[in-house]
Amino acid sequence: MNIIMLLYPRLTQLDLTGPFEVFARLPDVTIILAAKSLDPVTDSGGLRLLPTHTLTNAPQADILFVPGGPGQLDLMDDTEVLDFLRAQAAGAGYVTSVCTGSLVLAAAGLLKGYRATCHWMSLEQLALFGCTPCDDRVVVDRNRVTGGGVTSGIDFALHLAALLFNQERAERIQLSMEYDPAPPFSSGHPNSADPAIVEAMRARASGLQEKRWAAARAAAARLGKG
Amino acid sequence: MNIIMLLYPRLTQLDLTGPFEVFARLPDVTIILAAKSLDPVTDSGGLRLLPTHTLTNAPQADILFVPGGPGQLDLMDDTEVLDFLRAQAAGAGYVTSVCTGSLVLAAAGLLKGYRATCHWMSLEQLALFGCTPCDDRVVVDRNRVTGGGVTSGIDFALHLAALLFNQERAERIQLSMEYDPAPPFSSGHPNSADPAIVEAMRARASGLQEKRWAAARAAAARLGKG
Repeated sequence: MNIIMLLYPRLTQLDLTGPFEVFARLPDVTIILAAKSLDPVTDSGGLRLLPTHTLTNAPQADILFVPGGPGQLDLMDDTEVLDFLRAQAAGAGYVTSVCTGSLVLAAAGLLKGYRATCHWMSLEQLALFGCTPCDDRVVVDRNRVTGGGVTSGIDFALHLAALLFNQERAERIQLSMEYDPAPPFSSGHPNSADPAIVEAMRARASGLQEKRWAAARAAAARLGKG
Repeated sequence: MNIIMLLYPRLTQLDLTGPFEVFARLPDVTIILAAKSLDPVTDSGGLRLLPTHTLTNAPQADILFVPGGPGQLDLMDDTEVLDFLRAQAAGAGYVTSVCTGSLVLAAAGLLKGYRATCHWMSLEQLALFGCTPCDDRVVVDRNRVTGGGVTSGIDFALHLAALLFNQERAERIQLSMEYDPAPPFSSGHPNSADPAIVEAMRARASGLQEKRWAAARAAAARLGKG
């Protein structure tokens, strides 16, 4: 079973490394980290990861996965990446994402008519692409499986492990990773966080979010014409 | 503020990448990934990460961090690494670990007289080093801050962020990472998992665990002589 995980500059590394940890514990799985070249890819926090394949020599994926992050913006009109995702998705058993990775899938036209999720701050942008935004941590709609922001990737991957194998396999992995989370604060979702903190975060991200909306609108317009 | 994160072959990458994601969102922080050389380091699941510094050119750490993983075994009698940790710890504000990283700190003599935690399967080995094993997800004892298995690194790092800055800063990071965990199953700790799954995991890991015990006993004996 080939799992292709897309690597690109300024991804949020935990969007990818959370699911990677689960996938790496599945039997008979090959994880392919596919990027435009084999050069190291630097995440938004400065972590450098090495791809295993390029977009051109990656084999057909059984599971296709797209992480999110600030660099998602640049992928919204990147025909090389969008064409790669479309071609891979046509033969993949599952088409998946975490965080703003779902916006990239949407820009490739791969979420039209599906329910999906995204980082809470960008969730509504999915509607531009004929996709129904769904404020759940993990959303499964036929063979589209999407996770919310960043850390949801662990929950997402355990769900997917159970779909691909069975619940017992997923439970074994959960135990091996001691995934018994105990967040020290109740600030993980805008519904539970201090409203002042939610507001401050929205204000601080407003520049990036304006760009994200603009890129999403342009991508949706291109898709409509295509 | 310099945060040194130790990189070594066959670490468990999520032990490091979970906390990295939190640390990278702190202001005025430099994250140093220190390894024996600048060559890529391959984690136990096959992910290749690039160090930023070697053990010899890394600056003094304000926070020293050691992740766990199968490769921890080889560090238990690695004088180059243990000397590095001792020298860094002497000048560090916090000496920290996730998962079996605490066994490496212990082998360096850095947990004697402290309470600490570890991956549930290896927790008791800490007692060999004059350290009090503590079955909590995150343990703070003076300037020693340790996390349990793998995914506990996220809880650990949010605790540490609050200690280093303040709770509001940690809450903002938690919200940005959408850390509102929803494990699909109740299998994250031996106390909650299906006993058959706990037993199966202990049986499957027994070979590695025997080696871990032997390496810990030998390291403790060397430390006693030192």
